[in-house]
Amino acid sequence: MATPTPHDLTYYQASIPVFIRALNNLSALLHKAVAFAAEQGIEESQLVNARLAPDMFSLARQVQSASDAAKSCAARLSGGDIPSFPDTETTFAQLQARIAKTIAYLDGLSAEQFAQSGAKPIVMNMRGTAKTFTGYDYLFRLALPNLFFHITTAYDILRNQGLAIGKSDYLGSFE
Amino acid sequence: MATPTPHDLTYYQASIPVFIRALNNLSALLHKAVAFAAEQGIEESQLVNARLAPDMFSLARQVQSASDAAKSCAARLSGGDIPSFPDTETTFAQLQARIAKTIAYLDGLSAEQFAQSGAKPIVMNMRGTAKTFTGYDYLFRLALPNLFFHITTAYDILRNQGLAIGKSDYLGSFE
Repeated sequence: MATPTPHDLTYYQASIPVFIRALNNLSALLHKAVAFAAEQGIEESQLVNARLAPDMFSLARQVQSASDAAKSCAARLSGGDIPSFPDTETTFAQLQARIAKTIAYLDGLSAEQFAQSGAKPIVMNMRGTAKTFTGYDYLFRLALPNLFFHITTAYDILRNQGLAIGKSDYLGSFE
Repeated sequence: MATPTPHDLTYYQASIPVFIRALNNLSALLHKAVAFAAEQGIEESQLVNARLAPDMFSLARQVQSASDAAKSCAARLSGGDIPSFPDTETTFAQLQARIAKTIAYLDGLSAEQFAQSGAKPIVMNMRGTAKTFTGYDYLFRLALPNLFFHITTAYDILRNQGLAIGKSDYLGSFE
């Protein structure tokens, strides 16, 4: 491994701003979904409950899971308690509130709280068995792939339902 | 920003092993797709050309795009030339070869080549306009989200086509 240089990364940089940006992009996608439902004269609930396969999660559950991936990772890496948000959202307004609540939690964490993230053993319950992750494995093998999975699948559900969105909606602005 | 500690990350750690793992997981998904096509008696080409919306990329193009996201980022962060792989794959065997070629390229890069990634300005052509990214923005706002987008969408296409795969196929093994 190369000797760390001043240009190397912190666990904070590799998690919190990345999560916040992804959740803001998800929020923008859901705003477009509301406008689309209004234009097409379809019930919002049709989109909120849409899914890509009968045994896959609905759009609402994808949003809840993206929130869970972000807040669980932030809490575990910073050593805090995971905030509990019950999965009760059934409307776009409620899903936006869930995203906003998640971002507010992430925004309240400081970079200093992540100074020991790489050294912290993280114990997870994986299908009934306790499994210990390093901070690195937890962030890069579980949390980041999970977050992007649920946000991409939310995007894919909306595209599958006919929404005219593009990759730039998912990636967000580069201005 | 917290003072970097010995437990902080390198750009190499945040990119190459993450890309290789994601591409290996994608390869395993495609092997399951071949078995599924055989079981169901459907042409492999039906899956290779499947998509979630008429103007979205096919499964083949998602795999090519995942390869592109990984190799472009690896080359730009390490300061090398991007290997050119023509997008000619039309079968699962060819897509597997594309993934293997991409992983072989990534495997050949050393951590030392990424020592200056955070300080390197990366000039991208974004819709005809030159845009300069920091290594950080390039990796975390563009390359990683893009890679997971295309692999997740490949997964979503296969789920939408009826394949019995689960999140653990996407995340990979934690043994």
